[in-house]
This record gives sequence, structure tokens and C-alpha cells, in this order.
Amino acid sequence: MDQMDILRALEHMPLFRGLPPGQKKILAVSAKEKNFPAGKMIILDSQEAKSLYVIVWGKVKIFKSSAEGKEQTIFIFGPGEPFCLTALTDEVSPASAMALDDTKIIYFPAGILEKVVREEPSILFNLLSLFSRRLKEVLTLVESISLKELPQRLATFLARSAILQKDGYVVELSFSHRELSKIMGTTPESLSRVFKKFAAQNILDVEGKIIIIRDYDALMRIASE
Amino acid sequence: MDQMDILRALEHMPLFRGLPPGQKKILAVSAKEKNFPAGKMIILDSQEAKSLYVIVWGKVKIFKSSAEGKEQTIFIFGPGEPFCLTALTDEVSPASAMALDDTKIIYFPAGILEKVVREEPSILFNLLSLFSRRLKEVLTLVESISLKELPQRLATFLARSAILQKDGYVVELSFSHRELSKIMGTTPESLSRVFKKFAAQNILDVEGKIIIIRDYDALMRIASE
Repeated sequence: MDQMDILRALEHMPLFRGLPPGQKKILAVSAKEKNFPAGKMIILDSQEAKSLYVIVWGKVKIFKSSAEGKEQTIFIFGPGEPFCLTALTDEVSPASAMALDDTKIIYFPAGILEKVVREEPSILFNLLSLFSRRLKEVLTLVESISLKELPQRLATFLARSAILQKDGYVVELSFSHRELSKIMGTTPESLSRVFKKFAAQNILDVEGKIIIIRDYDALMRIASE
Repeated sequence: MDQMDILRALEHMPLFRGLPPGQKKILAVSAKEKNFPAGKMIILDSQEAKSLYVIVWGKVKIFKSSAEGKEQTIFIFGPGEPFCLTALTDEVSPASAMALDDTKIIYFPAGILEKVVREEPSILFNLLSLFSRRLKEVLTLVESISLKELPQRLATFLARSAILQKDGYVVELSFSHRELSKIMGTTPESLSRVFKKFAAQNILDVEGKIIIIRDYDALMRIASE
């Protein structure tokens, strides 16, 4: 990407909404880009991370993992979405980031970003909103893993992700079932059992990454149990 | 508290560090105070909350709860610490808040705070740091409840809370064991079993809210398992 491309990409990023052209230019000049193939680590938990990252294309998973390889997905981000927000105030990353698809990111050194922000504090409000939303999402995640059983968690996730199509509600997963099990904080085997149970109850049908919701009301009832 | 008292309280709050006296005065004039006895709800999850709260004295628990009464503590805050940060960008609270001790809080309407912030953006950096720290803490909580077993979680908590005293490491709980079980995301019964197991292994002794650590190394080993 040349500078013009990066400038154009910045135009589409909500984080930089309201930033005057001059400041956007400073960011574009300092931006670096990098490509990550699917499965490649971008940031390691507790390692130094002094840049703000924004996804140009692809998909990035933010997660925590244990020494034994257990994993809990925290966010999945797509194009235009920033991550490693904490780089502005913290030297190390509070989680890991991995490319889920082939992904292009651009990143800005925290120092440059801080300079831009000091001269044009309006985007601090964008950043605050973003932090606020992320905090809220993580609190919902805590609620889900700590207070809900797996069928309820899965039903909530499906009810939220379902899109009304011609023949009814459908969820099109943009990642594997293995990945979904990490989002649910469970094993692929346990997830599969719940899917089978839901299928046996005529609540849904699973066709690979396409999940056809047969009984949306039942799903909502389980979600709000 | 009269205005002078509130002004003096503001001086001691890290959130307002760097705010010019004039802006502090505007905040002090708009501040309202309220007392909550121990056990009283301050904010309800998903309910309107358009003020930023700061604790003058006492202790406040931020938590999520389920319809069946299960509860997960997210933060416990003390004097000088603000909560309901999301009021600046959001109309509803993402969690509940309850007084753990007899507590006095002062609160500022989000509108006034936003006005002060627009005129003096320096405290936005304080707010960003705060958001960043809170986000990090919740990610650590997610890691703990999702990836660690209870003995490991409790050992981590105790190792972090332990203070070196004349005769060795001691944890002085500032809340009940029942409250601790909610922080650990478990039941009082399960928590009690782990304490008994640790005691049988000569790792610690429990004397009410005082926990005497007999074998700090063993505790650290369990924590990092």
C-alpha cells in the first residue's frame, strides 16, 4: 500500500473519524503495514506491544491461553477494527493476537499516535467509546463463561449471530467449529454434543459452517434461561 | 460534605490529576453525594447510569449476576477509585454495583464531566489509562475463570494479596469468605474445600479473615501450574 492507499484506509476507520486531514497525513506517513497468513501470531500475551494495530483486511482473534494449550477467545475483529488499544498507556499486551484468515494490518507507533492525539484530542473520545464498548463486551463474556451453562451460551451466541434470510434465520460462521469452541470456552467435543442435542430437538440443523435455525423461539428461550 | 470538602476529595483522586483548579471547581459544584449502607445496591446491571461515581470512603463491588442468583465479582473498589466509567459514552451500566461496607460516594453527571473534559482534555489521558487498566484486569479475570482450576485461582489470588509481615506472609481479607467465593467464581462450599486441602498440605492456616501462609513457595507453584 502506498501512502494514498493508507490515507484512504484511514478515512474508513471509525477510530479516526473527526481527525483533520493534516493529522491523518502524519499518521499515514508513520504507518507500517504487515501481512500475516492465517494461523500466524501477531502479538504475544505479556510481550512488548507499543503500536496500535488496525485491520485492513482479514480477521484477527484476541485470546488468552494457558500453558497446557487451553484457549479462551475474547474478541474476533475484522476490517477497519483496531486492536492493542492498550499500547497507548501500557508497554505490554494484555492478551495474544493471531490472524484467523490471511490478514493485512497497518500499525502506528504509540508515540506518534499520542502526539497526534495531544494536538487533536477529538479522537480521544473515539478511543474512549471504543474502550467502553470493549470493556462492556468483556463483561458480557465474563457473565457468559462464569454464570451460564454451555447450551445457554451457545444459544445466546447463535441468537445474536442469526440473520433473517428468505427461509428463516441462518448463522453463517466465519470460522471453524474448533474456533467456535474456543469462543464458547469449551472443547470441540462438548460443543458438538450440544449442537447434536439442539438438532435432535429440531431447534437447528448444522451444515458445516452454515447453521439453519429451525426454531428461533426455542433458541431464545434457552438463551434467556 | 460541603464544597470545600468535595474539592479536597477531588485533589486526592488520581483521575482528576492535572485538572486546573477552575475545572475542579466546576466539578465540585456539580457533584452530588450519597451514602449507602453495606449491602445496598448502587447501580443495577443494564439500567440507566449517566453519572461517574467516585468512592469517598467505603468499598464497592462491581459484579454480574444471573437470574438464579449466581454471582461473579469483577472488581472491588476502595476510596478514591471511580466506577461507572462507561457513563461517559454509554447510557446504561454494563454491570451492577453494590456497597460492601458503609460507603460514601460522590457522583458527577456525565454531561458536566464531558464539558470539563472538552475544555481540558488532559484528564482524558487519565481516563484512557484507567480504561486500559480495567480492561487488562477483566482479561486477567477471564483467563482465571476460563483457563484455571479453582486451587490455581485461589493460590494466584492469595500469592498476589499476601503481605510480608514479621513472621511471614499473611493475607488479611477485607471481605467475607462468601464474598471471596464470588470473586473466585465458585460456591462457598467449594472454596472451603480448597482451603481445607491447602491447610492439610501445610500451605496455609485460616483464622477467619486472616490467612497465614506457611509455605509461600508451594502456593506460588500451585499458582503457576
